[in-house]
Amino acid sequence: MQYPAPIAKLINSFTKLPGIGAKTAARLAFYILEMPESDVLEFAQNLINAKRDLTHCSVCGNITDQDPCIICSDRGRDKSIILVVEDTRDVMSMERMQEFNGYYHVLGGVLSPMEGTGPDDLNVAPLIKRLADEAVKEVIIATNATSEGEATAVYLSRLIKPSGIKVTRLAHGLSVGSDIEYADEMTLFRAIEGRREI
Amino acid sequence: MQYPAPIAKLINSFTKLPGIGAKTAARLAFYILEMPESDVLEFAQNLINAKRDLTHCSVCGNITDQDPCIICSDRGRDKSIILVVEDTRDVMSMERMQEFNGYYHVLGGVLSPMEGTGPDDLNVAPLIKRLADEAVKEVIIATNATSEGEATAVYLSRLIKPSGIKVTRLAHGLSVGSDIEYADEMTLFRAIEGRREI
Repeated sequence: MQYPAPIAKLINSFTKLPGIGAKTAARLAFYILEMPESDVLEFAQNLINAKRDLTHCSVCGNITDQDPCIICSDRGRDKSIILVVEDTRDVMSMERMQEFNGYYHVLGGVLSPMEGTGPDDLNVAPLIKRLADEAVKEVIIATNATSEGEATAVYLSRLIKPSGIKVTRLAHGLSVGSDIEYADEMTLFRAIEGRREI
Repeated sequence: MQYPAPIAKLINSFTKLPGIGAKTAARLAFYILEMPESDVLEFAQNLINAKRDLTHCSVCGNITDQDPCIICSDRGRDKSIILVVEDTRDVMSMERMQEFNGYYHVLGGVLSPMEGTGPDDLNVAPLIKRLADEAVKEVIIATNATSEGEATAVYLSRLIKPSGIKVTRLAHGLSVGSDIEYADEMTLFRAIEGRREI
């Protein structure tokens, strides 16, 4: 015996999402049945709207509902610095910090030979074009501290440096509030390597 | 800075689901943006259909797209046994076993003074009515082996026994394939208590 068709289809839709297996999908689908109808209709509408109304900013590649995006449209920011990140969520993390006042560039991923992602699959060419057009003095590469993120950073720095623009990378070291006891060897090595006089 | 409205609303919808926090909701929402539009539209439609087309079977309380449900409509089953479960997923688990040929009754929850769930909030009265109407000889109470499940089983057995119908409870013991080393004390106690001659 199978679940009735409407619930089986909903479970199937949930299993297409990352990190959601058959058991979790069933739990979510049954939860939907108990939700107020207005919430479910709103959920369905939000899915459609997010897919239909959002696009990538033609300047920085960030996900946006207006083009250029709200950050690229802000003329009050510092034109001399571009911070390069992997995806939109990284832009949000940086903005939450409320300390960075330059512009962003969203790569939409990282170089990954394993997954067949090369420079042409990323938002790299528009970045190089921005660097030629604009009064950019520094590019901060803020890809993740993973091997792919590091490789992408090295690739970009080699690409940009010949133009004379300063290329920097986020510092590696201990997270604020973390215990040395639990830090991995690479992080400790980077923390010692990057030590500063106090 | 906030996410663009369409994505913020979608994240908000995802956080309403059980076990999905802000970070997971954001990850799911961004994944939706990368999905093919047809899959997203189908997901939205499946949400609406599941909510609109499904109802509770007027006989057993199971979730169904036809009333009475496919099991209650099956006249080839054994009328003398009713197996009482907490929810529809438990019916599915029992059916997967392919060994039970009686009918079901879905309570829609368990007694829980902590959450304010009393007998009137459960599908109990229709069960008692079924027992009076039908040629039922045995009621198997298959609520979960939790304290609420046990309390509900005791409550139901006290309610049903005066009518002379046999009331049984699923056996407790070691899971098939499990190690004694990892079994908890209560399970071991129940396994010894329920030991059988071989």
